[in-house]
Amino acid sequence: MNRRNFLKTSALGLAFAAAPISLSAAGTDTATRKAARSGRLNLSFEPYELKLRHAFNLARNQRTTTPGVQVQIEYDGLVGYGEASMPPYLGENVESVCKYLNSLDLAQFSDPFRLAEIHEYLDSVAPNDRAAKASVDIALHDLTGKIMGQPWYKIWGLSPEKAPNTSFTISYDADPKEMAAKIDETAPFKVVKIKMGLDHDKEITEAFRKRSDVPICVDANQGWTDKHKALDMCKWLADRNCLFVEQPMPKEMFEETAWLRERSPLPIIADEYLQRISDVRRAADAYDGINIKLMKSTGLYEAHKMANLARALGMKVMLGCMTETSCAVTAAAQLSPMVDWADLDGNLLIANDRFDGIKIVDGKVTIPDRPGIGVELIG
Amino acid sequence: MNRRNFLKTSALGLAFAAAPISLSAAGTDTATRKAARSGRLNLSFEPYELKLRHAFNLARNQRTTTPGVQVQIEYDGLVGYGEASMPPYLGENVESVCKYLNSLDLAQFSDPFRLAEIHEYLDSVAPNDRAAKASVDIALHDLTGKIMGQPWYKIWGLSPEKAPNTSFTISYDADPKEMAAKIDETAPFKVVKIKMGLDHDKEITEAFRKRSDVPICVDANQGWTDKHKALDMCKWLADRNCLFVEQPMPKEMFEETAWLRERSPLPIIADEYLQRISDVRRAADAYDGINIKLMKSTGLYEAHKMANLARALGMKVMLGCMTETSCAVTAAAQLSPMVDWADLDGNLLIANDRFDGIKIVDGKVTIPDRPGIGVELIG
Repeated sequence: MNRRNFLKTSALGLAFAAAPISLSAAGTDTATRKAARSGRLNLSFEPYELKLRHAFNLARNQRTTTPGVQVQIEYDGLVGYGEASMPPYLGENVESVCKYLNSLDLAQFSDPFRLAEIHEYLDSVAPNDRAAKASVDIALHDLTGKIMGQPWYKIWGLSPEKAPNTSFTISYDADPKEMAAKIDETAPFKVVKIKMGLDHDKEITEAFRKRSDVPICVDANQGWTDKHKALDMCKWLADRNCLFVEQPMPKEMFEETAWLRERSPLPIIADEYLQRISDVRRAADAYDGINIKLMKSTGLYEAHKMANLARALGMKVMLGCMTETSCAVTAAAQLSPMVDWADLDGNLLIANDRFDGIKIVDGKVTIPDRPGIGVELIG
Repeated sequence: MNRRNFLKTSALGLAFAAAPISLSAAGTDTATRKAARSGRLNLSFEPYELKLRHAFNLARNQRTTTPGVQVQIEYDGLVGYGEASMPPYLGENVESVCKYLNSLDLAQFSDPFRLAEIHEYLDSVAPNDRAAKASVDIALHDLTGKIMGQPWYKIWGLSPEKAPNTSFTISYDADPKEMAAKIDETAPFKVVKIKMGLDHDKEITEAFRKRSDVPICVDANQGWTDKHKALDMCKWLADRNCLFVEQPMPKEMFEETAWLRERSPLPIIADEYLQRISDVRRAADAYDGINIKLMKSTGLYEAHKMANLARALGMKVMLGCMTETSCAVTAAAQLSPMVDWADLDGNLLIANDRFDGIKIVDGKVTIPDRPGIGVELIG
């Protein structure tokens, strides 16, 4: 736990719903057990700053940390873990998440299984705050999965060996030595995702292809603003063993993206364009698939529905994440057997993970054999 | 158990996957326990003819019984119950269901949770046989729900008190005394469904309105073949407290139904038009909503996805059933908190139910507080 950051945030005048959570003895102390017997949902949370192992060079910004909030919900002697991760471009931050979580009255619910009703309540409290909602949703899935004694992939009827390879993400570095080191770090992976949309798109691709033969996928992060150049890049990438291109153009350029999709030899996947299930139908008019992320979808309940909806609409489904601890990434991994492509490397990109969970074995997403979201607190 | 019918079917040369199932001591005998320890799915089944309490006068046929098959899947000392019900117009019968079930090798699955994979297998064995597939799906849901110790409405995150009223179905009877008796039998219900599409549509509505004020819904069973007359009937019914009209015209008259939907003051719901999830998108172009039935959808796994898909497409959702025992009707009831209208009276229409399950309390669907699909074998 990042105590310094917790104190700093407290100094901003944020009150927490409960005393700082006990990180190692959750569910075992007397107070917790007593609360449990009341059959009420007991929410607690703390800020937790995620330290990036490499600075991110994105199309529109660069950063070395990601703000996060760690969440626990106690019920009936069990603890469910959840997490909010707030990359700055999504509009949430530690203050907004803590404010949202403080405004919740989860104690009104005597049953953690009522996810439909609880999500209605979460949306009624505030329209956005998607990462904050996701943190509650993930903790409730962890809790109910533990009550049922099963991991969520099983509860959803999925077969874990159908989980795909995950991509590992790299971005451009002006220092060729640093760039080569980044590329070499991708060796254990069967797919590599390259962040593009800056001025070095062909340069990084060529640098990568000099050192690796694995298929790439490309995330342009809205970086291409000319549809003809975007199409040229798609064609150029198609000749270099690329699987798909994510968010090639700004989300506002919907018609241009539809134009590109009609002509591109590579599937065009929506990321920034799309947040929740209500966005999926429209996305189908310009994109071949969607990238589902728990911090956008408000968690697993809606993410599962989004994946099913996209399938029913004949779309490809990709599962992504933010920089997150293994808590939220392992939660997302529960859905991975039903998707085409996974980009679940968020926990690998941070230096201060505090959970054991998802493993990448021979490049493939491997879901732990534990109930709930499948994690164990280690730090 | 209808032994006579079982023997008759056997005489047709159908072999059963297992000895006739023991109806009262399932899962308690030594043989079962031994099979259970092997961690394999052990399927058994028997024909079971459903006796109708009143003969059905439908637009296209009349009948006094419905053929059915009762199914059990044993695993790890637990038994899951399922059922196929085969109204003749859907093309399945005792022979086809037994043949399909006999062709299955469920013992290849060591885990009843793998519903996505098992459904892929069920569809790979034969393209149709939807009621036969539903019987396996329902038994697997019963089994996995029992392993998790929870009813499926909870596993799906639903709140049971959101279950709607159920309609109770009546059809025309030429004998006014018999007709009046049928109408009086609807007294406990808050909604009554009237079967139409014959020559007495206004007559039965007027007879009903003389004796009851409750809202009606209408199932024309494809009986109206003139779109202008269908529109006149929709307008006439709208003035008589009708909620919606189900399958007004033959399923082949798609364009005419779209025409009607544009003009009708009442929502138009697809029944015969629609079977499985792949039909839902197209249905949205001519219908306001869909009637989901387990015997059409191949069971709960796809039914749950269909309900979510219809919602995402902005459609109304109705949940129906065939004449079935409380086994399949209670399984369907697990989905009821997420639908607009329920027509779950199939068990009430038969004289030889063998399960305790769904209750109608003050007109409302009431889901039992039992794990799995929520039933208990009583006969």
